[in-house]
Amino acid sequence: MRLVIVGGVAAGTKAASRARRVDPGMEITVYQEEPEPSISECGLPYLLSGMVEGRDRLVARTPEKFAEQDIEVRVRHRVERVYPNKKTLSVRDTGTGEAFEDRYDRLIIATGARAVLPPIPGADLDGIFPLRFLTDADKIMAYIRDRSPGKAVVVGGGYIGLEVAENLCRIGMKVALIEGADRVALAYGSEVSERVEAELERNGVDIFTGEKVEEFVGDGRVRAVRFGGEEIGADLVIFGVGVRPSVDLAREAGVEIGATGAIRVDRHMRTNLPDIWAAGDCIETVNLVSGKPAWVPLGDTANQMGRVAGTNAATEEDTLEFPGVLGTGIFQVYDLGVGKTGLSEEEAEAAGYETVSAGVEARDRAGYYPGAQKVFLKLIVDAETGRLLGAESAGSGADKLVDICATAIWGRLSYPDLVNIDLAYSPPFGPALSPVIQAATILSGKFDRAREGARVTE
Amino acid sequence: MRLVIVGGVAAGTKAASRARRVDPGMEITVYQEEPEPSISECGLPYLLSGMVEGRDRLVARTPEKFAEQDIEVRVRHRVERVYPNKKTLSVRDTGTGEAFEDRYDRLIIATGARAVLPPIPGADLDGIFPLRFLTDADKIMAYIRDRSPGKAVVVGGGYIGLEVAENLCRIGMKVALIEGADRVALAYGSEVSERVEAELERNGVDIFTGEKVEEFVGDGRVRAVRFGGEEIGADLVIFGVGVRPSVDLAREAGVEIGATGAIRVDRHMRTNLPDIWAAGDCIETVNLVSGKPAWVPLGDTANQMGRVAGTNAATEEDTLEFPGVLGTGIFQVYDLGVGKTGLSEEEAEAAGYETVSAGVEARDRAGYYPGAQKVFLKLIVDAETGRLLGAESAGSGADKLVDICATAIWGRLSYPDLVNIDLAYSPPFGPALSPVIQAATILSGKFDRAREGARVTE
Repeated sequence: MRLVIVGGVAAGTKAASRARRVDPGMEITVYQEEPEPSISECGLPYLLSGMVEGRDRLVARTPEKFAEQDIEVRVRHRVERVYPNKKTLSVRDTGTGEAFEDRYDRLIIATGARAVLPPIPGADLDGIFPLRFLTDADKIMAYIRDRSPGKAVVVGGGYIGLEVAENLCRIGMKVALIEGADRVALAYGSEVSERVEAELERNGVDIFTGEKVEEFVGDGRVRAVRFGGEEIGADLVIFGVGVRPSVDLAREAGVEIGATGAIRVDRHMRTNLPDIWAAGDCIETVNLVSGKPAWVPLGDTANQMGRVAGTNAATEEDTLEFPGVLGTGIFQVYDLGVGKTGLSEEEAEAAGYETVSAGVEARDRAGYYPGAQKVFLKLIVDAETGRLLGAESAGSGADKLVDICATAIWGRLSYPDLVNIDLAYSPPFGPALSPVIQAATILSGKFDRAREGARVTE
Repeated sequence: MRLVIVGGVAAGTKAASRARRVDPGMEITVYQEEPEPSISECGLPYLLSGMVEGRDRLVARTPEKFAEQDIEVRVRHRVERVYPNKKTLSVRDTGTGEAFEDRYDRLIIATGARAVLPPIPGADLDGIFPLRFLTDADKIMAYIRDRSPGKAVVVGGGYIGLEVAENLCRIGMKVALIEGADRVALAYGSEVSERVEAELERNGVDIFTGEKVEEFVGDGRVRAVRFGGEEIGADLVIFGVGVRPSVDLAREAGVEIGATGAIRVDRHMRTNLPDIWAAGDCIETVNLVSGKPAWVPLGDTANQMGRVAGTNAATEEDTLEFPGVLGTGIFQVYDLGVGKTGLSEEEAEAAGYETVSAGVEARDRAGYYPGAQKVFLKLIVDAETGRLLGAESAGSGADKLVDICATAIWGRLSYPDLVNIDLAYSPPFGPALSPVIQAATILSGKFDRAREGARVTE
């Protein structure tokens, strides 16, 4: 029985390890174009500033480590075509240029996502980079070492762009961030976006929102960025935008692609083709709150999906399920943790919900305990049922509040559950009533008043 | 309409504020023996070391503040008797010694808990204190100021004893902690107890477990503590043991007392007597996991109960419910956060469950991110259904893990839910897979093997 996995980190290698654990006798080969098989891509922005010291810290497992588990990992190998009828694939060794044919009994597609640079004039100038793979970080760091750029422009105010802006600023560059929308961190409500912008600006990052880059200016190497009729100097440009699922291989093989542009799979990570599973950043799943297809390229989710795909491919049964996601995410800019789960108000309304929300500005420990810092939390609930649809938080301890709310949504809790919930209190860890309880209590008051209002007008 | 509340912090004053909000026209009087109406008792240990600077920081609201809300708070007033048939009470002003009669339409009993010193010879020596009220802290701090004690003994290894030991050690005292059981933090499994003991010992606290104090030795003032046939020097002794619900007033009035020795109330905080509610440390509630009566004297819970009792007493309807608790708690000793929710393995077995558990030693951020620290998490699930019964954690970020698990228990989640749950990941906030997911995945493996084993033997 031969299992072939196309693509490594994070879903592919996780699938390989799980398959090996389930079936000690199976042949397992992983093909991957990138030279490192298992790296922590989420750590890439921190490599730029040296906060994470040395690229090797991000290489979680080498091919030799996988070999100990009897998993063959072939890096610098591109799978160019899959033939589902014959159960074969054609592979090219990108080191030697040589092509060869391989066969599989079961196949897992984990081709991930790739950066797509927008078609802006001058985007091919030297000094302009995406940041998607460790090899991108290598190139950026080599460029910084060789050219000592003093002025950087980051294009895109999503979480990667924001993390990159911070990390370049930390090593002394003058950093400008350009975002096409009217605020950064668009997946969040404006209360959070404002806090993120303030935190970056306080630390010296210039932010330009509502601006589209018109041209990169330079002569061989980038020298400036033009937008809104103005030009600002830039010796280095990094794109924090434009990631797309890598599905060409799957599409050519006849694997069905979903509405989001990513591979469609069922809860068992099976594609429409027999003996082909898919997992990770190349597939679409479902947002469990909106019920809609969702494409969420995140490392932790890829890991969980890889576990399901690997187990099911190794057993040939629908042993495990991956039910979907809530859209939980978090990032940090300087001292500000910023996270969300479920739907923002905008997303909830787009999904057809009428919402009620409550925001609180609380503290991360008892007010009298030394070092107490601010944290903002907003809960968003369904106006009809009171069920929690989403939460977003910014500040110290945002990760805790987001995870409490993610668990609450997972358990389909409503605001009255969160008024009385028994969370952990002690002065070093929060106010006597958690911000979650505070916000739920405000919601409770809003619902009460709405009901009374209804009685009055009846 | 006249509402009288017996007892202040935390349930009594919360109930008063809520009642006022619900009914702006009601007369509201709070009687309380202690001189401060609304203080944060959980902060008392931190007052001893000066980590919380100045007792006034713990006084949340003065009588004048309550007066602004048209709530009369009468401190230094002891309610000596309640006459439910006449709806009257006799009250003594402990300042003047004068007694008088008052009446109520509705009554809330929030008499709290009191420290009970065990009957040990010499317990009446000078220099031996409980730590329950701000007045106790005042006495201890005056004693420290006047006598400069160099050696302290803390009796009891529950969370208050542990916090007191740390705070005395922080101001340079030689501290010994004596616990009758074979380990400290008995509400936890031994893995957590060991970590707590190690953390205290690493910081210089001597711990004696399995030892009962036989005698306090001294001449007027305490000089030593005798246990196990030995004597250790002590200029100061603080009790972190022996808190009991204060129910004498309620019992004499004919209010029903439950199995735990605390006042029995229903989900609406009503006692068995008409127009009498009760809330806070003096009442018993239900542990929602074991289904058994539980007495949990904690500030956050008292606060939540006060909200329910105040609202219901003001509306005379069963407007709000307090469903019960999970037994969630947390404390800190030095750099170690220690928390739990639900049942420990021992408690679960006592409640009739067969359990399966899984412990993980993880990190509070990605391994490659600077400053990553260790955190231990144990999940305890029902062997029959897989439902989460309890969790305990020790280390950095324990508060987050406990709150995730408390929310999971509140939502009646089982281990398979926690394998795929969508929690927030980014390198500064945790490993790619949360310790909760890691432990749930181990449980999943244990259940799989148990099922396979069952098939083999069938």
